[in-house]
Amino acid sequence: MAKAQKTMHDLFHETLKDIYFAEKHILRALPKMAKSAHSDKLREAFVTHRDETEGQVERLDQVFELIGKPARGKSCEAILGLLEEGKEVMEDFAGDPALDPGLLSAAQAVEHYEISRYGTLKNWAKQLGIAEAVQLFDATLQQEKNCDSLLSKLALTKINLEAV
Amino acid sequence: MAKAQKTMHDLFHETLKDIYFAEKHILRALPKMAKSAHSDKLREAFVTHRDETEGQVERLDQVFELIGKPARGKSCEAILGLLEEGKEVMEDFAGDPALDPGLLSAAQAVEHYEISRYGTLKNWAKQLGIAEAVQLFDATLQQEKNCDSLLSKLALTKINLEAV
Repeated sequence: MAKAQKTMHDLFHETLKDIYFAEKHILRALPKMAKSAHSDKLREAFVTHRDETEGQVERLDQVFELIGKPARGKSCEAILGLLEEGKEVMEDFAGDPALDPGLLSAAQAVEHYEISRYGTLKNWAKQLGIAEAVQLFDATLQQEKNCDSLLSKLALTKINLEAV
Repeated sequence: MAKAQKTMHDLFHETLKDIYFAEKHILRALPKMAKSAHSDKLREAFVTHRDETEGQVERLDQVFELIGKPARGKSCEAILGLLEEGKEVMEDFAGDPALDPGLLSAAQAVEHYEISRYGTLKNWAKQLGIAEAVQLFDATLQQEKNCDSLLSKLALTKINLEAV
């Protein structure tokens, strides 16, 4: 028997499960990154983004509901690798002046992954005519972009310069 | 004996090794993605970006030379995870209409990783006063951003719409 053809709906659903898994892991990683950061501003950025991430998970729950599927993640190798890099920085640079710039850079790599994924999901939701999902993804996308901008600004401040 | 404090120079060097490893792996993955793509335009984008990636590796060789270190990579979990996702799409969606949108999305996640990394390295090179490296990273950063824009445009065309 020939296998059933997979459609854009399947791809959308698979990618939704992937980012759901990713957000749940980010939610657990951010408090550790906050605890590890030296700079108050960096710690604050991580704590704020942790709260935002909770809201982002809720939006994903809503999208699962919109497509009539249970909210369930599936292992996402990309986020595991990205978070592993943050963990390595925390271990290798513990107590060193370059810890904060390293943490910041690891967080930006995670943000960029999310920006890419939510940009894709928003586009697919539009093409599949799931208007409410477009709005939900867009709200999260704006938060991720703002977070990345904030981190880029911090990277130009004494967080990095003191480590030079 | 207390361990030697790690500096921004160490962090810069570690991150350089990380992206060097990543680019070498991307260089091997792109021909497979090109071969797998249905759309001529998507295949062309992958082939072009493979050639660009060769030049990006050469620029990294130059940066290693600037800091007087051997050009050597170190295992980068993030890129392995990101490329694994591309491989999963190629396997799970082989022969299906959603293959190209899936490939495109996987490629954009990789581009965003690189955009993040080169943005960070450019900033650090500036802060460390390695002016030539700033220029080299900037040249690559522009290529990565252009590649991502091209992929975003393709995602709005019939590559995706035929799959809907």
